[in-house]
Amino acid sequence: MTTDRPVRETAIEADPRLPTIRITREFDAPVPQVYRAWTEPGLVGQWLGPKDLTTTFDHWDLRTGGSYRYRQLRDGREVASFYGSFHEARPAERLVQTFTYDGVPDGVSLDTVTFEDLGDGRTRVTVLGIVESLAARDMILASGMDRGVTEGYEQLDAVLRTLG
Amino acid sequence: MTTDRPVRETAIEADPRLPTIRITREFDAPVPQVYRAWTEPGLVGQWLGPKDLTTTFDHWDLRTGGSYRYRQLRDGREVASFYGSFHEARPAERLVQTFTYDGVPDGVSLDTVTFEDLGDGRTRVTVLGIVESLAARDMILASGMDRGVTEGYEQLDAVLRTLG
Repeated sequence: MTTDRPVRETAIEADPRLPTIRITREFDAPVPQVYRAWTEPGLVGQWLGPKDLTTTFDHWDLRTGGSYRYRQLRDGREVASFYGSFHEARPAERLVQTFTYDGVPDGVSLDTVTFEDLGDGRTRVTVLGIVESLAARDMILASGMDRGVTEGYEQLDAVLRTLG
Repeated sequence: MTTDRPVRETAIEADPRLPTIRITREFDAPVPQVYRAWTEPGLVGQWLGPKDLTTTFDHWDLRTGGSYRYRQLRDGREVASFYGSFHEARPAERLVQTFTYDGVPDGVSLDTVTFEDLGDGRTRVTVLGIVESLAARDMILASGMDRGVTEGYEQLDAVLRTLG
């Protein structure tokens, strides 16, 4: 695909002292559109990375007190599954959810997603994830999650253009 | 109440470096009974502290992917409310849940409760709570939560005797 828009950078930062990962990314779409693409399963399934995997949802009940479970497949074969609950959905503002990769069943991340209006139809999304130890955080960083996140947000750019 | 059983100590520990609170308490009852008293709303409502408050549940759907909301009252007047979701319920072994006090709506704790068989019909419960910053953790510690926790577990001792 050719585009005259610049490719946005995804920042993934690990706090040196706290077991957190902070992901920051800007999108060329207003907050309501980004929130919609972030929360409707028919749209989320189009962009979750990495690019060589497809996503199918067992369920996705995005509301305060709801939950989700989805699987990712390569060439039709499942390679990973994930589940969690939605602690709070504050539309167009903030999501708080839990996240577990079934391959590490005792690992749980508490993720807070913040949607910030930058003006000019642009949005900054910040995802702050916290786990129980620096060792667990470093294992997540070493898992290749950066490629999944970065490629996912590039696909989200494309989804947002379809909503424009 | 008189009893020949020793009063168990509740240990509440703050990690000097991580934004966690670890609560440890032993109970004179086997794991299945402690788990039952920890999870059935009709029993939870009997012991949640502090002692001068009563608890009413708006809902309590304890299962992986479930959620809860409850209020605490003094002399019939609401003084606090809390909500969260159950990330995972692993019966008689482990609970992972989120927790927010409505008075601090952006504050979220991720709490992992572990039930450990000590033999001789005794159980150790460990609650590891993590929040996003040391400042948030220290605010929780300064809130008087220690009295609520300690008094709650003393009431739980009494509930467990009724299940014996």
